[in-house]
Amino acid sequence: MEVVQLLHMNGGNGDASYSNNSLLQRKVISITKPILKKATVDLYCAMNCPKTIVMADLGCSSGPNTLLVAATFIKMINEISLKMGHEPPEIQIHLNDLPGNDFNIVFLSLPKFLESLRKDVCHSNPSSPSCYFSGVAGSFYTRLFPSKSLHFVHSSYSLMWLSQVPELEETNKGNIYMSSTSPSSVIRAYYQQFQTDFSMFLKCRADEMVSGGRMVLTILGRRSDDPCSRECCYIWELLAMALNDMVYEGRIEESQMDSFNIPQYTPSPKEVKNEVEKEGSFLIDCLDVSEVTWDSSTNNNIIRPEECKESDIGGYNMAKCMRAVAEPLLVSHFGLSITKEVFLRYRKIIIKCMSKEETKLINVTISMTTKS
Amino acid sequence: MEVVQLLHMNGGNGDASYSNNSLLQRKVISITKPILKKATVDLYCAMNCPKTIVMADLGCSSGPNTLLVAATFIKMINEISLKMGHEPPEIQIHLNDLPGNDFNIVFLSLPKFLESLRKDVCHSNPSSPSCYFSGVAGSFYTRLFPSKSLHFVHSSYSLMWLSQVPELEETNKGNIYMSSTSPSSVIRAYYQQFQTDFSMFLKCRADEMVSGGRMVLTILGRRSDDPCSRECCYIWELLAMALNDMVYEGRIEESQMDSFNIPQYTPSPKEVKNEVEKEGSFLIDCLDVSEVTWDSSTNNNIIRPEECKESDIGGYNMAKCMRAVAEPLLVSHFGLSITKEVFLRYRKIIIKCMSKEETKLINVTISMTTKS
Repeated sequence: MEVVQLLHMNGGNGDASYSNNSLLQRKVISITKPILKKATVDLYCAMNCPKTIVMADLGCSSGPNTLLVAATFIKMINEISLKMGHEPPEIQIHLNDLPGNDFNIVFLSLPKFLESLRKDVCHSNPSSPSCYFSGVAGSFYTRLFPSKSLHFVHSSYSLMWLSQVPELEETNKGNIYMSSTSPSSVIRAYYQQFQTDFSMFLKCRADEMVSGGRMVLTILGRRSDDPCSRECCYIWELLAMALNDMVYEGRIEESQMDSFNIPQYTPSPKEVKNEVEKEGSFLIDCLDVSEVTWDSSTNNNIIRPEECKESDIGGYNMAKCMRAVAEPLLVSHFGLSITKEVFLRYRKIIIKCMSKEETKLINVTISMTTKS
Repeated sequence: MEVVQLLHMNGGNGDASYSNNSLLQRKVISITKPILKKATVDLYCAMNCPKTIVMADLGCSSGPNTLLVAATFIKMINEISLKMGHEPPEIQIHLNDLPGNDFNIVFLSLPKFLESLRKDVCHSNPSSPSCYFSGVAGSFYTRLFPSKSLHFVHSSYSLMWLSQVPELEETNKGNIYMSSTSPSSVIRAYYQQFQTDFSMFLKCRADEMVSGGRMVLTILGRRSDDPCSRECCYIWELLAMALNDMVYEGRIEESQMDSFNIPQYTPSPKEVKNEVEKEGSFLIDCLDVSEVTWDSSTNNNIIRPEECKESDIGGYNMAKCMRAVAEPLLVSHFGLSITKEVFLRYRKIIIKCMSKEETKLINVTISMTTKS
């Protein structure tokens, strides 16, 4: 099985991804909600109060946040249609993730979700709103829907994952992601892979969306123009540190370390904008940058393990979150035997670093309209 | 958990239903293929060579036959469009079953399925046909799709399952399904439950389908006007026999037996026709009755267990098939402890009966067009 496939498979399950770190993702959705809201209202008005709206959430995963954006979207549509004195439209929501995602869990949770949504949205009319859910399994770097069949597309914390590890001409010595010590050919290859993937994504969605459709994407990214900026690369540098220590101690083969790289690209707003303009199917309505601190992943309600000091709980959680993301990649490349040790070391490093400085994740959010 | 829910849940899994008895279902699909083909071609021509066709397969299950009807449909559309000199349309296939169905397995099988379909259908153009699959979890006795969003609906071997066990005024003494010894109020209650469920099914589909859409349904049924006819009730009478023996021996409480009934109704062609005409949204294009012998469930390639004579292999397989269908209902009602014993007895009875007479299942197939 390919590394990327493994990663995505895990990325789609339970707590096993950035996008499924409940609190972090909840925070990001809450930060970007005004952009989602504006795009939704604009779509509804531009469509002249439609009878049906079809929405797709790409990279939906299967955790507690899977239906969060759908709920927000449905509530907004309901609110605006009632405010304008119209019957709320029927809403079809397509939930997409890779075939390894646990769609069964999502489907089993739907009846309860719909019941609570109905209580929430409409006290008088128990049959309103009319929402129809479907699961669509496949990579969003391919076509997933028939032409001109979507009105709204959303994706949060998924598009930083590349379709594959870029093909590198030179070894990314001592690194597992782009870093200030990476050869320039490595940086170029990463950027090119992002360009290829993101423009393919845009092309596929342009085919699938109706003219005047809206798309809101939030991508883990960076503010800086420098692709090796600390704000996006630091978290992987800390993992490389743990791995390099183990290479130094002879517990990991150097050649194995040399050939391990993370299939991710954290773009700047400018790079996102460039690709959108180059592809040419979308008009940019809004391009926004926001941030969440690493310790947004902290759940203060969980029982703190004995070995963890109170001040270290943020680091402990961030390490847990990163383990969920990176473990399948590591296991697939290095084998199972070293994984536990790597993550013990990684945790220590993260805790130490978070005690010294404020560490943040940067989100790039773009809201677009398909040109007619 | 409700009995019916349990039954449907199992009905949707692996080999655990009528509809998923591979060979039986394959045979039924092959028998009804000409009707499916005619409806498909008629739809394509009536739609004037459309660019997109949306199809739903209701009660798709998750076994080796889940994608069989979809494949047949896609191939037919491809064939007719090429014959008429048109570009094949994009096809969206919605696979529906209850939320307990294993959609994960279906989704994981899709990439391989699509690859082989492409090889099969189109040698020259690897991207054709363009098919998009989605999973839709929910009961087909409720709305599943937005209004006017489907062109074609198919369902095979699912609609004989009622939404619930009918509410009975009198005890169905000694029986677990309709039988010649059932009180007339029991027969009436079963029929009324079928009428309520089937008309609700038709109403929901009428809302969801475009005008001129086609629907092909195959239902386990009967030829006779008598709802207690041997052709549909015999298989359940044999199970009742096994249970009654155990009541007689004091191993099952009589009151437990009295309150156990199977949530199924096997309609006659006339009853199906009546409901369609009463509901009023569909024109009947074709109403057909076909049959498969009980030993169509026999897989001659499987290793025959030691305790089973060669002549008994048909009965052995039919018993296995019925166990898969009935076990969750029995476990939920009588508990786990008696199940093994019940099915040992049931198997003996089935083998004995199949050695003496030819036993058949009757299929009612109806093909319809939505009125404009």
